[in-house]
Amino acid sequence: MPVGRPKSFDETEVLERAMDLFWEFGYSALSVSELLAHMGISRQSLYDSFGSKRGLFVRAVHHYRDTQLTNALALLERDEPPLENVKAVMRYFEDLANDRRCRGCLVANTLVELGPHDSEIAQLLQATLDLLQVGLEEALRAAREQGALPATKSPREVSRALLNALIGLAVAGKLKQGPEAYRDIYSGTLSMLD
Amino acid sequence: MPVGRPKSFDETEVLERAMDLFWEFGYSALSVSELLAHMGISRQSLYDSFGSKRGLFVRAVHHYRDTQLTNALALLERDEPPLENVKAVMRYFEDLANDRRCRGCLVANTLVELGPHDSEIAQLLQATLDLLQVGLEEALRAAREQGALPATKSPREVSRALLNALIGLAVAGKLKQGPEAYRDIYSGTLSMLD
Repeated sequence: MPVGRPKSFDETEVLERAMDLFWEFGYSALSVSELLAHMGISRQSLYDSFGSKRGLFVRAVHHYRDTQLTNALALLERDEPPLENVKAVMRYFEDLANDRRCRGCLVANTLVELGPHDSEIAQLLQATLDLLQVGLEEALRAAREQGALPATKSPREVSRALLNALIGLAVAGKLKQGPEAYRDIYSGTLSMLD
Repeated sequence: MPVGRPKSFDETEVLERAMDLFWEFGYSALSVSELLAHMGISRQSLYDSFGSKRGLFVRAVHHYRDTQLTNALALLERDEPPLENVKAVMRYFEDLANDRRCRGCLVANTLVELGPHDSEIAQLLQATLDLLQVGLEEALRAAREQGALPATKSPREVSRALLNALIGLAVAGKLKQGPEAYRDIYSGTLSMLD
């Protein structure tokens, strides 16, 4: 295939479908044939555009970061009291846990499946999580300066514990525990801010 | 093979090895051949004793519950102030996160990989997590009665949030974030008890 030949498909749309598949089923359990069937492209197009199944996966994780995670980060930028923004992020993950597809968070899923065995992917995941942790820490620091968070609380510790709870919620959402359980997790976790 | 023929291997030892493998690599990524090579038994023995790869996996999760989880539950039974026992459970999972093998918790790993796709395994995982949640809730209730936990805190909510944080720690341990990060998660999470 000559270099530069125009693509016969919409790359963003194809990445969106790949992201949805990996998000729901993970990496190892999906065969290339299953991916192609759901993405609606040929094997040759996959290799031309993404290099390999792994290459497609890395691009799908980038796409997840640029869409889903960006939505969560935008909640921290709203012109609201910073603790309200932090609670909105927690609520965002509570909604993920209640999603009937039980797919959790692609980053958390990938951490479990590939994190320890693939250092390039581990770095990408760490960088993605760091974005959220830093955003939470800044909001907590602002809240403490405004007197909304007790001076005894460490924004660093609480932001790391909150990020950890978000990861937990993403995983706990794999079981259909029902909205009451996730609401309790939400309330209990936010009692860190008291 | 005649029924009742004595086994040519120590079943507990073989289950221990299978548990270790699934814990580190997950279910889908391991082939039966890899399992057999590490377990040191024949294919026929695997099918005779466990029925299938899935049957072996279910037994390995039971074995995990009866060993690893039982160790965590025993911490709650110590003759110490109940909040100290709760902190010891949290510390137990912090140690898991620091383990250089980065394998997290078999229950959390399996939740991510198989939870939404296999209802029998989901039930087994839920029952296993419930044991820990109930133990934490009882300890928190006792702590509140003794005045060690503020009366405004709900043992149900806090126990669910703590269990969620333990799951998060198991997953976060898949990245080598270093002891400082896990210590911050420990301290931030336990500020729920203030």
